[in-house]
Amino acid sequence: MAMMKKVRPREVFMGRLSHGDDLLEEISNICLRENIQLGWVEALGAVKKARLASYNQETHAYEFFVVDRPLEITKLAGNVSLKDGHPFIHAHITLADKAGKAYGGHLAPGTVVFACEFKLEVFDGPEIKRDFDEATGLPLWSMED
Amino acid sequence: MAMMKKVRPREVFMGRLSHGDDLLEEISNICLRENIQLGWVEALGAVKKARLASYNQETHAYEFFVVDRPLEITKLAGNVSLKDGHPFIHAHITLADKAGKAYGGHLAPGTVVFACEFKLEVFDGPEIKRDFDEATGLPLWSMED
Amino acid sequence: MAMMKKVRPREVFMGRLSHGDDLLEEISNICLRENIQLGWVEALGAVKKARLASYNQETHAYEFFVVDRPLEITKLAGNVSLKDGHPFIHAHITLADKAGKAYGGHLAPGTVVFACEFKLEVFDGPEIKRDFDEATGLPLWSMED
Repeated sequence: MAMMKKVRPREVFMGRLSHGDDLLEEISNICLRENIQLGWVEALGAVKKARLASYNQETHAYEFFVVDRPLEITKLAGNVSLKDGHPFIHAHITLADKAGKAYGGHLAPGTVVFACEFKLEVFDGPEIKRDFDEATGLPLWSMED
Repeated sequence: MAMMKKVRPREVFMGRLSHGDDLLEEISNICLRENIQLGWVEALGAVKKARLASYNQETHAYEFFVVDRPLEITKLAGNVSLKDGHPFIHAHITLADKAGKAYGGHLAPGTVVFACEFKLEVFDGPEIKRDFDEATGLPLWSMED
Repeated sequence: MAMMKKVRPREVFMGRLSHGDDLLEEISNICLRENIQLGWVEALGAVKKARLASYNQETHAYEFFVVDRPLEITKLAGNVSLKDGHPFIHAHITLADKAGKAYGGHLAPGTVVFACEFKLEVFDGPEIKRDFDEATGLPLWSMED
């Protein structure tokens, strides 16, 4: 069963990150600086190395790993919502190495930007907040009105 | 040669699916319930297992396969249009396992949601209908006015 | 540090490419024909073969390679901006073979469409132009006002 809220487009940004930025932290910084509480971000580019995570669905813990080489970002997709009262980015990323082999996972701090171009859609609308979800162990959108 | 139609943004939803949902069926249910005939959906999250397909370009048949383990959804992308008079979802998905290895394909019924967050853009505009396409054997957008 | 510009949504197109099209060239053709100078494109579908590139972050040169078999497009993501005064598409793509194995990279000419459905968002707003960037050797968005 889907639970969803209608949101209202407020503004759209296109931009890029700087060489050497931490990918996740810098997207978070944008949202904190601009007070963006609800949004969707898409990006492409390249990283010097990636730090990713996979969520262990049995132990309910993220397992982190590093792909320590240059990779193309074939896609970053993330959303912005509220967690503990602050803007929070949840992003997943797909990458590819020089042979074209693809990698992916939950984007973690420690992923270093080589170049990155993004589109960031900002929404007004009902707040969407993360709360602890018993079934998954994750901070999911509570979606209550 | 590209064929395209200008569509008018009507509304945008952000939401999540429930633990245990069939990923494709539940997105279809949203569109049937809300009478969404034209749209674009993006999502990320995780699945308990994935059922995908690859289209055989010679035999013109989908070949289905299952990746029977927990996977991150690094990206789901799909569109909503009309097929046989009803809203129809066409979605492709990229996934990654706990080692970061990426998988992908045409999303088929049988993919079980662990957690899934989506953005669904709904459009008004000229109908876009699927009709049988001789060259590919697929129900493609006819794009006639 | 992120640099970004607020852009104004002008119009949205949904459409498809034709069987046999060169994927990158045909998206470029749309933008030239419609004089689209700023935009974002997302797509899914299938290709007969893919020609991709990985950027060598040390030598500052693209290294091209071909995946010479039918593949699903699990995601194409690209943007439109100005380079040398003309609309220029920068797109990355994620693909999957019949076993579900995923590939990806920078989309190069020589990728042949089997079928491809896209959403193209067109923006008005401040020009975004590509200029040579010393640190990366790439034509990145200069983002100066």
